[in-house]
Amino acid sequence: MSEILAGDKRAVARAISAVEDSRSGSSALLKELFPHTGKALVVGITGAPGAGKSTLVDRLSAFYRSKNERTGVIAVDPSSPFSGGAILGDRIRMQSMATDPGVFIRSMAARGHLGGLARATADAVAILDAAGYDKVIVETVGVGQDEVDIVKTADVTVVVLVPGMGDDIQAIKAGIMEIGDVFAINKADREGVLRTEKEIEALLSISERPDGWRPPIVKTVATEDKGTAELAANIDLYREFILGRADLYEARRASVARARIVELLRERLLSAALAKGMTEDFLNQAARMVSERKQDPYTVVDQVMSRLGL
Amino acid sequence: MSEILAGDKRAVARAISAVEDSRSGSSALLKELFPHTGKALVVGITGAPGAGKSTLVDRLSAFYRSKNERTGVIAVDPSSPFSGGAILGDRIRMQSMATDPGVFIRSMAARGHLGGLARATADAVAILDAAGYDKVIVETVGVGQDEVDIVKTADVTVVVLVPGMGDDIQAIKAGIMEIGDVFAINKADREGVLRTEKEIEALLSISERPDGWRPPIVKTVATEDKGTAELAANIDLYREFILGRADLYEARRASVARARIVELLRERLLSAALAKGMTEDFLNQAARMVSERKQDPYTVVDQVMSRLGL
Repeated sequence: MSEILAGDKRAVARAISAVEDSRSGSSALLKELFPHTGKALVVGITGAPGAGKSTLVDRLSAFYRSKNERTGVIAVDPSSPFSGGAILGDRIRMQSMATDPGVFIRSMAARGHLGGLARATADAVAILDAAGYDKVIVETVGVGQDEVDIVKTADVTVVVLVPGMGDDIQAIKAGIMEIGDVFAINKADREGVLRTEKEIEALLSISERPDGWRPPIVKTVATEDKGTAELAANIDLYREFILGRADLYEARRASVARARIVELLRERLLSAALAKGMTEDFLNQAARMVSERKQDPYTVVDQVMSRLGL
Repeated sequence: MSEILAGDKRAVARAISAVEDSRSGSSALLKELFPHTGKALVVGITGAPGAGKSTLVDRLSAFYRSKNERTGVIAVDPSSPFSGGAILGDRIRMQSMATDPGVFIRSMAARGHLGGLARATADAVAILDAAGYDKVIVETVGVGQDEVDIVKTADVTVVVLVPGMGDDIQAIKAGIMEIGDVFAINKADREGVLRTEKEIEALLSISERPDGWRPPIVKTVATEDKGTAELAANIDLYREFILGRADLYEARRASVARARIVELLRERLLSAALAKGMTEDFLNQAARMVSERKQDPYTVVDQVMSRLGL
């Protein structure tokens, strides 16, 4: 634990592996680390596949480094055959940043039998926070329920779009309004950037956010490192805005904490149920009965619940 | 229930809404319907955003209709700002198919507080199955852990790719081998189709599937209804193959049943815990304590677990 608090990269990596595997002892460690968390700014970055999120995240990390801020990156990889980027991306990133002790990059690809990608990500963020990283960037693809839920728990969320995406404006749902505190139009040297900007503005003008914040739109060309400083400045602007509205800030933090408790509880319940109410043998036999239509799954679960006294 | 068994579309729609909201009584209904399930062929269709899945699904439904088979479609929409298609797509679909009593189309967008997109989708499939739909097509975007998990539970899974996607072959992960029983290269009138085909073949030749099946690659142009019959024929081929291998077939069905039991259990546990071990007041107070760093979330969950006697 002292190694983590001292920011030792290898200790941090080991701890994240432990929470990823829900290894025993990892929750004791997290309890100890908890009082040391809450200092990092957690930035969520999400966007459609191919929007250039990884490059943008790299540029942002490098920018923070240039300000002498330690930066941790958690790239949530839903282990989809189509998301792809993470594996290749990691290798490229490792080469350019592995030697910098102030940058920690981790891809969360594995998902245990019991689920808990959101839980594992939150734990990894807590470890980086306790280890003294000033900024923790959580990058997810903006498709998939788990992935969108994860990025919602950041302090500031950046939605990355690209020109041309808005060709079909109806493809961008109203839900984007709640998710994005800052919008980045990446690949902004491409045709159609003004149109995309106008379309986002139009969407933003339809509905007002409950906090009254008007999300800024920043144009970036991550491959050429253009717009990075402006993006970072706008992330800070939202941070300052929300800190200045104590009621909203507390409500947001409480709602994040609530989601985290429920996520942890969900996982612990299933572990306990599998340990106490439903042995591996019972589960395998029940699965066979269900697949042969001799028993319905609802009745199986009723049995397990009553065994557990629930 | 008799209305559902008779295939009444409005009764089916009501039942699906009930399971989506986890309304009380819906699990009693599902228990009753269970003995009437297991007849439909469940076809999972997944692919990257923009691969033209919805159009392909429409064509396939129309093909099945032309063979006088009743077809149900569940489009799983992860309510992402980027997936977009479902809302617009639904409207178009409704116009062309709403009048056909042999086609049922439903988009599963809502996700309740307790999660359970996978559970709700499985229940909706069971309802359509019991209602006598010969084919049930489950369409998901192939990004996102939940969405990939859902499509894995189909009897036959079709992975939809488009030419040019393989520009970066490393973006297609090895995981695709397990997911796809049949591959469709849609938009096959575009440049690069042969290259994409070769790249898929190369990937398929690297690793052998445990069942020995060599997934066929079908070229389609869904917008012009080209390749639909061939796709349907290859879906049937895999179906026949797996039915001929009783051991593999039973193992697959049992593994799907197992996943379904666990998914149901997960949801029931959380409901019970929230009802018995953790009132809304307790949860809100705990969330506030956690967000103020006065209490860590792991200890909160320990308390709830011990209250529940787990």
